[in-house]
Amino acid sequence: MTMKDFIFYNPTKVYFGDRIDQLTAELAQYGRKVLLVYGGGSIRRNGLYDRVCGMLSKEGFERFELSGVEPNPRHTTCSRGAAICREHDVDVILAVGGGSAIDCAKGVSATAVSAETDVWNIIKKGQLITEGLPIVVILTNAATGSEMDMWAVISNMETNEKESLGGPGIQPKAAFEDPRYTFSLPPYQTACGAFDIFNHVLDNYYLAGENTFDMVLNFQEDVMKTVVKYAPTAMKEPENYEARANLMWASSVALNTMLDAGTVHAPACHMMEHEVSAYYDITHGHGLAVITPRWLSYILDEKTAPAIYRLGVRVFGIEPGMEDMKGARAAIDALSKFCFDTLGLASAFTELGVGREHLKEMAVHSCHGGRLQGIRDLGPEDVEKIYEMCM
Amino acid sequence: MTMKDFIFYNPTKVYFGDRIDQLTAELAQYGRKVLLVYGGGSIRRNGLYDRVCGMLSKEGFERFELSGVEPNPRHTTCSRGAAICREHDVDVILAVGGGSAIDCAKGVSATAVSAETDVWNIIKKGQLITEGLPIVVILTNAATGSEMDMWAVISNMETNEKESLGGPGIQPKAAFEDPRYTFSLPPYQTACGAFDIFNHVLDNYYLAGENTFDMVLNFQEDVMKTVVKYAPTAMKEPENYEARANLMWASSVALNTMLDAGTVHAPACHMMEHEVSAYYDITHGHGLAVITPRWLSYILDEKTAPAIYRLGVRVFGIEPGMEDMKGARAAIDALSKFCFDTLGLASAFTELGVGREHLKEMAVHSCHGGRLQGIRDLGPEDVEKIYEMCM
Repeated sequence: MTMKDFIFYNPTKVYFGDRIDQLTAELAQYGRKVLLVYGGGSIRRNGLYDRVCGMLSKEGFERFELSGVEPNPRHTTCSRGAAICREHDVDVILAVGGGSAIDCAKGVSATAVSAETDVWNIIKKGQLITEGLPIVVILTNAATGSEMDMWAVISNMETNEKESLGGPGIQPKAAFEDPRYTFSLPPYQTACGAFDIFNHVLDNYYLAGENTFDMVLNFQEDVMKTVVKYAPTAMKEPENYEARANLMWASSVALNTMLDAGTVHAPACHMMEHEVSAYYDITHGHGLAVITPRWLSYILDEKTAPAIYRLGVRVFGIEPGMEDMKGARAAIDALSKFCFDTLGLASAFTELGVGREHLKEMAVHSCHGGRLQGIRDLGPEDVEKIYEMCM
Repeated sequence: MTMKDFIFYNPTKVYFGDRIDQLTAELAQYGRKVLLVYGGGSIRRNGLYDRVCGMLSKEGFERFELSGVEPNPRHTTCSRGAAICREHDVDVILAVGGGSAIDCAKGVSATAVSAETDVWNIIKKGQLITEGLPIVVILTNAATGSEMDMWAVISNMETNEKESLGGPGIQPKAAFEDPRYTFSLPPYQTACGAFDIFNHVLDNYYLAGENTFDMVLNFQEDVMKTVVKYAPTAMKEPENYEARANLMWASSVALNTMLDAGTVHAPACHMMEHEVSAYYDITHGHGLAVITPRWLSYILDEKTAPAIYRLGVRVFGIEPGMEDMKGARAAIDALSKFCFDTLGLASAFTELGVGREHLKEMAVHSCHGGRLQGIRDLGPEDVEKIYEMCM
């Protein structure tokens, strides 16, 4: 075992449960001019928009708005938000929503304090962001982990690119996580979010098997087990607090770097999926569910079989003691069943409107000029074959 | 299940592994005048003292020293350190050692910026400490978790009191955790430290069973399993990096509040042990090992049996499917065997020089005028009986 050295530093303050009464005190640390960032109508329908605006008005905050953030947030939307911040000298950004609103807020944050006015120019520099406007989050979906990490994924639909932006300067200062705010999420979005959480861990799990702490490997399995246990409940009983709470905290833990200790973060499936949603604007978690079992089938060999089998035993309750290849196949079957039966997600790209026309260039892009790291490294030719398996 | 709301906020930056080259940059954020806090001769013998002093000199830091910190750090030592800070306008405290040096540094930190010159007067106010001199830690023992939490335990040997001091103002800004710095720890101290980690989790585990997240309950079991797996290895092979690294990171995770999510922190055994070391100055982890199995035997009944049995199954590998009371007894036997055979710790207070003369007042003190919380609450009369079982 060769554990890697690591730095753990996660200064996001999480208010979990019914703690929204602390919101204005948290915001006031940074100033009185707030940019509210949100997506479509869901927070208007469920009353959260009115509640937050009421609290801000009552405490004398000046509110500006960036609304209509897309499910895969666009670079143009980030740049528009940054312009509002500049024009009105905004002090703090309040993102209300899921990963899209938060990622957009991160793009706004970095751009608002930059000499660049277009977030895409900042992304293209590929540097860690050390400064940004402070961000506070009210989370309404358990999925991306963006509420407690330093990363954002921004889409440029003109060039079909989906790229990461990250750094300590844009990590949220605080996140309000009330499971009740996810009660109104429909089953499809609950399923997509849940699988996003699952894959954040699984992407790392296989590297971790060789490199990390025994304890951390167990933590990773615990988080995946949580998704497997509670996602079906949350889909069937949207107002089940226990299920929603477990998924919400799992979302944050999956990416708050506790699970990276001693390993490297190697998001192979995520990199493959980003290309799909960059070209076809599909729901990220759904794309991951299509790709992940195929990825495992593709990388399955004598070397990878023990780790894949272990996943099956620890997370899906497959019986131990089988021959490794047989056990690994059973694990992949169990994962497929979870994705396509339990979560009810369509299993083929074709059902999502994804065609073959861009597969080759998507495969090249996904590797960013190198190879995707993992228990088995992948080049563009591998990725193209995996995409083909997803059709 | 009734999960409690919680706040998670842990801004300590952990440098894990061979990262000591970052030390002076970390310190320089706070200033150039450093108070070095350490215990006895171990860091002089293993070369760490010379290395740190060399780095500080080379980078032009001005160094002051508070040495000879006791294993159960005294309030007088804290106050002495605070006087040095005031006299020389110290900017930052560097604690090099285990929990004693770190806890002492926390006492110094709080007192150096206070109108009080005696840390005991601050402790007696019983308030959370919001301001203190910045603290940076180099950890040399895996045990107390003090490197990544906001609490210190300080002893007043004049009054036989051992009390807690805590708050965000005295949480370390950064902790350097290099498992190699624990290679020179003798087996006895390794064992005591390991059991301290174990008990930090176990103290909470039984409350957690009813109140917390499924995922967090699993995390708790993972940390305890880590101790059970790696403590014996570290005792037999002091330079086994894997064992030392797992124990060191377990020490930090056990108390960084990740394991408190959704529950309350209820350190019943810790409160009982603090009285023993306050009166008899024994090693804290050893005192815990004597108390813990007796505590479990005392609270064992039909209501508590399932949780105790679960501990046995999940952490000690006891077979599932037994009748609860029988399984719980097997779990307690397994824990006793771990403490007294595997870790080799003496099993009776009498072997540690603890007599019966103060048991009644110790029992009263331990409850601080109330009752000790846990899966079964304990009053002074219960604590006295548990102490008696330890003789």
